[in-house]
Amino acid sequence: MSSAPIALALHGGCGTLPPDELTPAEWAESRDHLAEALRAGWDVLKRGGRSLDAVEATVVVLENSPHFNAGHGAALNAAHEHELDSAIMDGATLSAGAVAGAQRIRNPVKAARALLERNEAILLIGPAADRFAEEAGLVVVENSYFTTPRRIDMLRRMKAHKASGTAASEGEKHGTVGAVACDRHGHLAAATSTGGYTNKPPGRVGDSPLIGAGTYARDGVCAVSCTGMGEYFMRAVAGHEIAAQMSLAGRSLDEATQAMVFDVIGKQGIGAGLCAVDAAGHVVVPFNTVGMYRGFVNADGDCYVGTHADLEFRGTWDRN
Amino acid sequence: MSSAPIALALHGGCGTLPPDELTPAEWAESRDHLAEALRAGWDVLKRGGRSLDAVEATVVVLENSPHFNAGHGAALNAAHEHELDSAIMDGATLSAGAVAGAQRIRNPVKAARALLERNEAILLIGPAADRFAEEAGLVVVENSYFTTPRRIDMLRRMKAHKASGTAASEGEKHGTVGAVACDRHGHLAAATSTGGYTNKPPGRVGDSPLIGAGTYARDGVCAVSCTGMGEYFMRAVAGHEIAAQMSLAGRSLDEATQAMVFDVIGKQGIGAGLCAVDAAGHVVVPFNTVGMYRGFVNADGDCYVGTHADLEFRGTWDRN
Repeated sequence: MSSAPIALALHGGCGTLPPDELTPAEWAESRDHLAEALRAGWDVLKRGGRSLDAVEATVVVLENSPHFNAGHGAALNAAHEHELDSAIMDGATLSAGAVAGAQRIRNPVKAARALLERNEAILLIGPAADRFAEEAGLVVVENSYFTTPRRIDMLRRMKAHKASGTAASEGEKHGTVGAVACDRHGHLAAATSTGGYTNKPPGRVGDSPLIGAGTYARDGVCAVSCTGMGEYFMRAVAGHEIAAQMSLAGRSLDEATQAMVFDVIGKQGIGAGLCAVDAAGHVVVPFNTVGMYRGFVNADGDCYVGTHADLEFRGTWDRN
Repeated sequence: MSSAPIALALHGGCGTLPPDELTPAEWAESRDHLAEALRAGWDVLKRGGRSLDAVEATVVVLENSPHFNAGHGAALNAAHEHELDSAIMDGATLSAGAVAGAQRIRNPVKAARALLERNEAILLIGPAADRFAEEAGLVVVENSYFTTPRRIDMLRRMKAHKASGTAASEGEKHGTVGAVACDRHGHLAAATSTGGYTNKPPGRVGDSPLIGAGTYARDGVCAVSCTGMGEYFMRAVAGHEIAAQMSLAGRSLDEATQAMVFDVIGKQGIGAGLCAVDAAGHVVVPFNTVGMYRGFVNADGDCYVGTHADLEFRGTWDRN
C-alpha cells in the first residue's frame, strides 16, 4: 500500500446556525451524521479506494440526513417545491457530471456521478435530469420525499420576512453539503449537493452544480466545494479562482481559500464557507459566519467534527 | 469624448463550414449579417455607449439571423425542440445574467441582460426562464419560431449518423454566437447565445450560459466568448482560465487564448474558437477549425469579417 497521504473534508452549510433552531437531541444527531458521512468517505479512502468514490459516499450520507439542505431535508423554493442541484468532479481527468433543478432523484450526487461516467453531457437540467437518473437505475422519489417539517417552517418564515420587509438571517436562508478528498494515488475529487436557498425563485440555479464555481477539482492543485449565496461564488468563479491562485500565483491552499472566503466574498457582506484539500492532503474548512457544519480527517488520521466554534469533536482515526 | 480605445469582436460559431452547406447567396447573406451585427455594437460604442449594451446589440442581430445557431435558426435537440442558452457579463461589476433550456424567448440574450439588471438570480433554467422573460416584457414566441429548414435537415442527418454509426462533421454538430467589447470608459463585457448542438439530449446545458466557462468578462483583464463542444470548455473553465493566465501569470491575450484554443482544447481533438478583447482594446478571434464565422472592429477602426481563411472582408470604420 502506498504511503501517499489520504485526506477528506466536508461541509454541511454555513450560517448563524441559531442554537434554538434545533433541539439538543437534533444538534447531537446532526453532528453524528457529519461523523457518519466522514466515516463513509474515509472507509473508501483507507481501503485504497478512489477520492471520487469517497466524496460521493460522503455526500450521499448528508443527502439522506434530514439535517442538511440537500436531498431529504432540502430547502423549499417559493413554489413550495424542491429543486436540487449537484455536481461531482474528478481531479485526475477533469471529468465532471452535474444536475440542476432535479425534482425526483433521491440522491442527486449519484446522478451527477452517473453523468460523469457516461461522459457525454456534463450538466442536465430539470425533468431531463430526473429521466436520466431513472434510466440509469437510480432511485427516484416523489418531490415530497425531500420535505421536512423544519423546511416548511423555514419557508413560512421566509415568506413572512418578504411580506413584512424584514431581513432573513443567514441561518434561515441557505445551506449546502459538499466533500473533497485526496486518495492514496494522489487523485483529488470534489462533490457538492444542495436544495438552494429557502424561498428561491423556481428555476434558479446557484454555484453548486457549476464546474469551477461551487465545485472544482484538479490533481496537483486542489479540490474545493463551496457553501453560501451562490451568485457570489458564480461571479468569482470561486473554485477555479482558488486553483488558479495556487497553480499560477504560488499561493498555498490556506492563503487562496482564506482570500476567497474573507476577502473576495466576505468583503461583500456575504456569509461564505468551503471545504478544500490540496495535493499534499492538507485540508481546510474556512468560513466567515458564526458557524458551519464541517468535518475532516487529515493525513495524520486526526478526525474533527464541528458546528459552532465552541462545539467540536476531535479524535484520531486509523489510516489503514 | 475620451480617447480610450473602443473595440468589438464577435463569432458566429466554428467548424468545417462546408461550402456546399449554403448557396452563394446564403454565404453572402451570412457575411452581411455578421457585418450588421458588428455595426449594431459599434454604433453603441462609438457614441460613447456601454460595452454591455454593445455586446447585447450585436448578439441580438445574430440571434435574429437564420444563419447562426442561436435564436431563429438555432439547432434542434434530439426531441425535435429548441432549448436555448445565453449569458451576459459586465466586466465592471462582475454582474451577470444567464438562461438555460429556454424555449420561448425570442432573444435569449435579452433575458440574460434582464436577469443581470434584476441582480437576484444569475441563472434561470427551463420554463422559469421563459416566464421571467415574459414578465420582464420581452417578446416570447412559439418554439417553432426558432426552426429553419436547414436545422430540420441537419437533425435528420445527425440522426442518420447516429443510426449508421458514421461520424458527424464538426460543421454539422454545433455553433454558437458571441460578442465581446471594450468601451470608452475601459469597461469590458461579453455575451454568448446558442441552441447547443444538433441532436443534443434534451436538458443538456453547455458552456455558453455558465459564467467563467463560455462567457466571462473582468475589467482590466479581458472579456471572452467561446464556441465549440461545450463540455470541453466547462472542464477547462475556459473563460476564467484565460483571465487567470493573464492576471496571475502575466500572459498576453494572444498567448492565453491561443493556449486555450490550440493546446488545452485543440490537443483533445476538439474544434474550438472564441472571440476576446483585453483592457487595451486588443481583439482576437482564434479558432482551430477550417472556419469560424467571425468579425471585429479594432481600436484603430479596422473592420474585419470572415468565415473561412480565404473568404474575408476588410474595411475601416469611423470611430466617432
